[in-house]
Amino acid sequence: MTELCFPLGFRSATAGASIKKAGRDDLALLLMPEGATAAALFTTNLFCAAPIHLSRQHLKDSRGHASALLLNSGCANAATGSIGANNASACVEGVAQALGVDAQSVLVNSTGVIGTQLPMDRILPLLAPLAAEASNAHAQASLEPYARAIMTTDTRPKMAAREIRVGDASVRVSGVAKGAGMIHPNMATMIAVVMTDAQLTASELDQVLRVAADQSFHRISVDGDTSTNDSLFAFASGQGPRVELATLQEAVTAVCEELARMIVTDGEGFTRSMSVRVRGARTRSDATTVAKTVAQSLLVRCAVTGGDPNWGRIVAAAGRAGITFDPSELRLYVGGTEIFAQGQPLLCNPDTVRAAFNGPHVDMVIDLGATIGVEAELNADGFLTSGLTEEYVRLNADYTT
Amino acid sequence: MTELCFPLGFRSATAGASIKKAGRDDLALLLMPEGATAAALFTTNLFCAAPIHLSRQHLKDSRGHASALLLNSGCANAATGSIGANNASACVEGVAQALGVDAQSVLVNSTGVIGTQLPMDRILPLLAPLAAEASNAHAQASLEPYARAIMTTDTRPKMAAREIRVGDASVRVSGVAKGAGMIHPNMATMIAVVMTDAQLTASELDQVLRVAADQSFHRISVDGDTSTNDSLFAFASGQGPRVELATLQEAVTAVCEELARMIVTDGEGFTRSMSVRVRGARTRSDATTVAKTVAQSLLVRCAVTGGDPNWGRIVAAAGRAGITFDPSELRLYVGGTEIFAQGQPLLCNPDTVRAAFNGPHVDMVIDLGATIGVEAELNADGFLTSGLTEEYVRLNADYTT
Repeated sequence: MTELCFPLGFRSATAGASIKKAGRDDLALLLMPEGATAAALFTTNLFCAAPIHLSRQHLKDSRGHASALLLNSGCANAATGSIGANNASACVEGVAQALGVDAQSVLVNSTGVIGTQLPMDRILPLLAPLAAEASNAHAQASLEPYARAIMTTDTRPKMAAREIRVGDASVRVSGVAKGAGMIHPNMATMIAVVMTDAQLTASELDQVLRVAADQSFHRISVDGDTSTNDSLFAFASGQGPRVELATLQEAVTAVCEELARMIVTDGEGFTRSMSVRVRGARTRSDATTVAKTVAQSLLVRCAVTGGDPNWGRIVAAAGRAGITFDPSELRLYVGGTEIFAQGQPLLCNPDTVRAAFNGPHVDMVIDLGATIGVEAELNADGFLTSGLTEEYVRLNADYTT
Repeated sequence: MTELCFPLGFRSATAGASIKKAGRDDLALLLMPEGATAAALFTTNLFCAAPIHLSRQHLKDSRGHASALLLNSGCANAATGSIGANNASACVEGVAQALGVDAQSVLVNSTGVIGTQLPMDRILPLLAPLAAEASNAHAQASLEPYARAIMTTDTRPKMAAREIRVGDASVRVSGVAKGAGMIHPNMATMIAVVMTDAQLTASELDQVLRVAADQSFHRISVDGDTSTNDSLFAFASGQGPRVELATLQEAVTAVCEELARMIVTDGEGFTRSMSVRVRGARTRSDATTVAKTVAQSLLVRCAVTGGDPNWGRIVAAAGRAGITFDPSELRLYVGGTEIFAQGQPLLCNPDTVRAAFNGPHVDMVIDLGATIGVEAELNADGFLTSGLTEEYVRLNADYTT
C-alpha cells in the first residue's frame, strides 16, 4: 500500500481550540508552496456556509491559486448571519498575517454544528502558533493527525494515497475526508482535500477534480441530504515531475473513490453497503436517474439491511424513476444472478438469491434493455450507498432528548 | 359525525378466499346501479400491476361508466407476467357473467404481495355467490366490512363520509382506503374508493376526483415509494339530488383528505405526524417542490421522531430543493413560532421551540419571501408525512429473515 503521507511541498499542523469539546485537535492548517494551483467544488445548497462564500470568492480572485487552507471541526459556521461572515474573514486574516501572504490566497471551511458561532476568542490566538508550526513541519509527514482533526461523528480517520512512478521519481496523490455523519443539532458536512505534487495548471486541476468527483463523491449517498458545508478541495504543489494527465486522472479518481467508499462505510449506523449500476439506458442521464432512485429508496435500503431478497422493491423503484423504458425489457441481477426478466421473476435457486442479499455488500445491476443509444460503462453509472438501519434513525432522532 | 355507510345505489359483499391467510375476508365486490359514472387515477409506476392495465382499458372503452369493482388483498398481481394478466381477465369475466353485464363495465384491482400469482382455484368459485350476495345487500349498509376486506398491514379500517343537505334530501360522499404499509415481500399498494349518490357526468366526476387527489393523496408521503398498484377510484350513482359542483367538490376533497390523513397516521411504525406548508414562493410548483423536499428529508423526519428542535435541517432541506430563492428572505415557523429569519436563528424561548417539536403533530411553515408571483394558499402547498422511526426500519428490514 502507498504510504499515507503528504505529497512534496505540503505541510500541515493541527491544534485544539475546544470548539465543540476539549481534549482533541479541531483546527487544521494546510500550507501549499508558492505557485501551487487550487480547485474546489462546493455544496449546491442555497444556505451555503459563511466560509464557503469566502473561499469561492478567493479562488475566483486568485484564478485558482492558494497558499493555505484552514479547516475546523465542531462548528459549521452556517446559518450564522453577518457575525458568521465576519468570523470567517477574521480567521482568514489571522492566517494571512501570520504567514505574510495575501488574504485572498487563504481558503477556509468549517464542519460541525449549524447555527452556532465560532469561539473566536479561543481560535484567533492559536492561528500564529499554528502557522509557525506548519511552516516548520516535516515534509511528507503522515496524513493522520490532519485527517483526525477534521473528524466529527466519523469513527475513524479517512485517508487514501496513490503513487505514480515517473522514471526514478514519482508523483503522489493523497487525500483526506470527513464523512457524512450527522452532528448536533444538524446535518452532515462532508469535506475532502486532495493533494498532489504533480505539475498542473489551475484549469487542468479543476478539470481533473470534476471528473474524479463525478466518479466518486457524486455517486454516494448516505441520506440524500446535501449539506450547507459540503466541499472538495484540490491542490497541486508542482514539486514533483510532470506526468501524463490521463495517468494522474486515474490516480486522483482512485483516491476520491476510496475516500467516498470510506464515507459510506463509516456512515452512522452502517451495517452493509449496496451499489446500483445501470446499463442499457438510452442516455447516461437516464442511467444515473434510475441508479439514484433505487439507491435512495427507503424500501430497498431497508431490505438490504435485513438481507431480505425483496427484488420487487428494486424493480418498482426503477419503474417510478420518471424516465421512460419498456418494463418488459428490464433485467435485474443481484450479486451476479439474474432474478427478474420479461416482467416476471425467474426461477432461481432461493439460496443463491438469499446469499446475494446477505453478504457485506449487495451488488445490483439493472439492464434497461435499450439497444440504441449509449452502451454506458458499468462503473460510470453506479451509485454507492448503505442499508438504512434502526441505528441511523436512533442516532438522528435522539440528539437533544 | 356523518354515518359511515354507502351512498344510495351502492351495494357490496365480501368473502374470504384465503389469498394470503385464512380466516379473514380478502375479496370485496362493489356494485353500482345502471348508468353510474366512474373515474380513476392510477399509479405512474412503469411496472403497474396487471389489474390496473385492465381497469384503465375498461374505463376508456366505457367512457367513464362501471357496474362493478372487484378488489382483493393478500396478492398484488404485479410483476406476474402473462399469467397475471390472464388471471385479472378471468376475475373480471367471472364477475361479469355472474352479474350478466359486459366485462368492460367491471373494474378490478389487487393489493398485497408482489410477484406471486392469485390463487384462482379459490377465487373463481366465490365470484358467483359474491355477486349474488352483493346484489341482495342492504342499501346504505356500513362501510366497515368493505374497508376491512381491503386491509393489508393496516392496523384499522379507513373510512370517511360527508353529507350535503339539499332541501329535504341529501347527497352523500363516502370513501374507504387501505394504507401505505409494506407487506411481504414488497411495497405499499394504496387503494382508495370514493362513492357518491350525486348526479355527475363521467367528465365532471373525473374533474372532481383530480382536484380532490391534488389536495389529498398527492400530498402525503410515507416513504416516497410509488407502488405498482396505487389507485383511487370514484363512482357516482346519480340516485341522489343534483347538487352544485363546488359544494360536491368540497365534500369529496374533505373525504379524500380525511382518508389521506388516516393513511399517514396508520403508517408502519407511526409515532408523530408532520406537515410542511410553503408560502411566498414564486410559483405553485416551486412551493410544492420545497414542501416535498423537506417532507421527504430523512434528517428532518428523524428529528421529528425524536422531538428534536433541529430547525437547521429544515432550512437546509429547503436550500437543496433545486429551486431558486433568496436564502436571506426565508422565514421558518414551527408550531406557529417564527424561529429563523434573515439567514440566522431568532432568539426564541427554547421551551416554546421544544414544545413545537414535541406534540403529536409538528407543523412547519416556510415563507420563501417572494412578494411577486402567486400568493399560494397554505393548504394548497402543504405536504403531510410522519417522523421516520426505528420501528419502520425494523418492520421493513425483517420480512423474511
